Amino acid sequence: MKDIKEIFESYLKLVENQITFIGRVRSHRQSKVVSFLVLNDGTTINDIQVVYKNDIENYDLVSQGRVSSIFEVTGNLILTSGKPQPFEIQATKINLLDQSIEEYPLQKKEHSQEFLREIAHLRARTKTFQAIFKIRSSAAFAIHKFFQEKNFVYVNSPIITENDAEGAGEAFVVTTRTDGKYSQDFFGKKAALTVSGQLNAEAYAQAFKNVYTFGPTFRAENSYTSKHAAEFWMIEPEMAFVDLSINLEVIEELIKYIVNYLFDNNIDELKFCNDNLEAGLIEKLNILRNSNFAVNSYEQVIEILKDAVKNGYVFEENNIEFGLDLGTEHERYICEVVNKKPTFVTNYPKEIKAFYMKQNSDNRTVAAADLLVPGIGELVGGSQREDNYEKLIKRSEEMGMNPKDLWWYNDLRKYGYYKSSGFGLGFERLIMYVTGASNIRDVIPFPRTPKNLFF
Amino acid sequence: MKDIKEIFESYLKLVENQITFIGRVRSHRQSKVVSFLVLNDGTTINDIQVVYKNDIENYDLVSQGRVSSIFEVTGNLILTSGKPQPFEIQATKINLLDQSIEEYPLQKKEHSQEFLREIAHLRARTKTFQAIFKIRSSAAFAIHKFFQEKNFVYVNSPIITENDAEGAGEAFVVTTRTDGKYSQDFFGKKAALTVSGQLNAEAYAQAFKNVYTFGPTFRAENSYTSKHAAEFWMIEPEMAFVDLSINLEVIEELIKYIVNYLFDNNIDELKFCNDNLEAGLIEKLNILRNSNFAVNSYEQVIEILKDAVKNGYVFEENNIEFGLDLGTEHERYICEVVNKKPTFVTNYPKEIKAFYMKQNSDNRTVAAADLLVPGIGELVGGSQREDNYEKLIKRSEEMGMNPKDLWWYNDLRKYGYYKSSGFGLGFERLIMYVTGASNIRDVIPFPRTPKNLFF
Repeated sequence: MKDIKEIFESYLKLVENQITFIGRVRSHRQSKVVSFLVLNDGTTINDIQVVYKNDIENYDLVSQGRVSSIFEVTGNLILTSGKPQPFEIQATKINLLDQSIEEYPLQKKEHSQEFLREIAHLRARTKTFQAIFKIRSSAAFAIHKFFQEKNFVYVNSPIITENDAEGAGEAFVVTTRTDGKYSQDFFGKKAALTVSGQLNAEAYAQAFKNVYTFGPTFRAENSYTSKHAAEFWMIEPEMAFVDLSINLEVIEELIKYIVNYLFDNNIDELKFCNDNLEAGLIEKLNILRNSNFAVNSYEQVIEILKDAVKNGYVFEENNIEFGLDLGTEHERYICEVVNKKPTFVTNYPKEIKAFYMKQNSDNRTVAAADLLVPGIGELVGGSQREDNYEKLIKRSEEMGMNPKDLWWYNDLRKYGYYKSSGFGLGFERLIMYVTGASNIRDVIPFPRTPKNLFF
Repeated sequence: MKDIKEIFESYLKLVENQITFIGRVRSHRQSKVVSFLVLNDGTTINDIQVVYKNDIENYDLVSQGRVSSIFEVTGNLILTSGKPQPFEIQATKINLLDQSIEEYPLQKKEHSQEFLREIAHLRARTKTFQAIFKIRSSAAFAIHKFFQEKNFVYVNSPIITENDAEGAGEAFVVTTRTDGKYSQDFFGKKAALTVSGQLNAEAYAQAFKNVYTFGPTFRAENSYTSKHAAEFWMIEPEMAFVDLSINLEVIEELIKYIVNYLFDNNIDELKFCNDNLEAGLIEKLNILRNSNFAVNSYEQVIEILKDAVKNGYVFEENNIEFGLDLGTEHERYICEVVNKKPTFVTNYPKEIKAFYMKQNSDNRTVAAADLLVPGIGELVGGSQREDNYEKLIKRSEEMGMNPKDLWWYNDLRKYGYYKSSGFGLGFERLIMYVTGASNIRDVIPFPRTPKNLFF
């Protein structure tokens, strides 16, 4: 018994051999003398074509096999002229292992993405979602491999937390009660789903120098956009003893490593995405892995955007001045129109960034660096962390937080703390970027968005 | 600038060389002429000893460096007679980069595990927790590597869910309200934290043949034991087209792969655990990786336990008969006293197992297999899944569930479903097993248990 992936990898050695495999029916076309079964077993996005004659054993049963039924096939591998596949199987024996019902929702025709989202338990059987979710799986592994090779320690930061990190997004409450009496709750206090593992990662970076998290994070934001989900995965590396410049190096190296890993291991899936999801995807990724990312300070970006407006370019937010929280339109203009490649923007105004970012000596910017990529906008957000205890406390108070809530985080600065830098990479945005999928709900197996909780 | 890990890996080449590195003070011992700094940077559990004389530049400042302060040291690497380390650094220049306060809680002395849990933001700096969490990180990577090499697709099953899987543990509710009016809630319905990703993984196994999840799961159980936490990580592989026997093979191969990976990559940490957490740990793990796991049917186990009782062995639950839900004491007796190695128990009574397990033809057992290991009890639980739609519905109704709640899961059987088998491996139990840590709260960076939510 062979996986179909193995057959494709070694078909030249299998010519005229008798092979046996199991597959699910993608299509079944019959004619008087010969019939064609197209089967896939999920181990590859490539389908195998089986030819059988009407004198085959159990022909009556076999010929009734519907789309999505499971067949076991034994037959000879024969080279063909190459379209769509370089070989086919001439069956000598076929078993219908399990018949599908006629009302299988995924018949061989075009379906809208919206319809496919309603059958999230089945959509991964389509080539599009096989490609996306194989790439997602490979990219996840590439990320682990990258960090493990560099001796970063993988840390599972907590999912249930008593703090909501930067207080940014609204947090989901985790409870066993229906009355909001949290002092009598499971944890004896209000508990929330984490919006970031960064603060915990920082504590661990002080123990291991280099660490990374890779886990789910949550936002109870009522956003109905193609880029927001209530549940998504984040990678949050943290490095002790280094400054912002190392952050930029590691981010660029990481992104290129992932893309190179996909070229090495998922070229079939990338080609499929190139042909079906984003024309030019492979060229875009080739540019990425072969060029140096651009670097602009926030101040430079503001000047560039002002010039653009002066020259007649119209943004929805056209009032460009220092202090502006860049929108996706501005981010995309910088990396798509101006630099035409991934771009770091550094040293943002402190007012629009989190309390824990290191304040620069100019007293108005922080040592932050976001990575903007064409088509997406912000893919990575990072910074050097404030190492001065008093400045950290003052800044968190200015931003309306109670420093006591994060006593342990602040205290890290008391016990020997020499620089720390890190970043957050949104895993789904990365997958959108490398597959060309345009909606975040299509890169998450079972996406969660407002009023949308199924499966 | 070198990591201390690099220095240990290449110290023979660095003899008499001048090197520079950064580290945190584990201890600082002064005498009239020479002083000793023991530094660690977290990249290895090994410490580096620095010797400096009282004529070194900035002696007054350097000599005041407290435990947990950060130093940058430049000096010559000199071989020593080998205890505790084979070399030391004779400093030529020392910078105190950041001074710790005097009240640093982790002074060089023995601390109780209970005290260390109260400073979870600092405890990873101790050798014990450095060893445990490095092993945890490596084991996680070994698991990904094992499955990726076998072409399993990593699937992120959802964390927020509308179902609580087998209805076993109590589930946490996820909400943005305080009044329990879930129809007006974020998702428009009651939402819970997942207790298992298996059902979703099964849907994906039908698309990819072989898949695995690796993510957090949750139980709102009020258990105050050393083996239960409210938040823990699970690995749940699922394989289409195979039966229970393959499950056993993959489980055994996986566990051995992880242990071998740790021997190859974490021998220092394993030795530390052997010397400090569980005497005999390395021998135990060597037995595991060099022997074949035992297999007993549940029925055999009952006979063995009956015989034990007959011969005077006393269990807390001494009433042994078919139908008994084995307790940890029974599980440990089987693998520790009888087989003296990891043991699969197969074909449990259907009454004590989940609705989705395949019913055997004897009509009273299911095709389940749990793996019991010495010292822990159940480490893995697995089964072949029921493939017959009618039997599945009937069994879930018998167990008091409403089949409509899992319509999509049940429906998988309608659309061509030929066998599926899988298992769940509790990640923390695995880490306890391979480190010898006796409490689950010591293998989770920031553990969550009843009334315990800090950091």
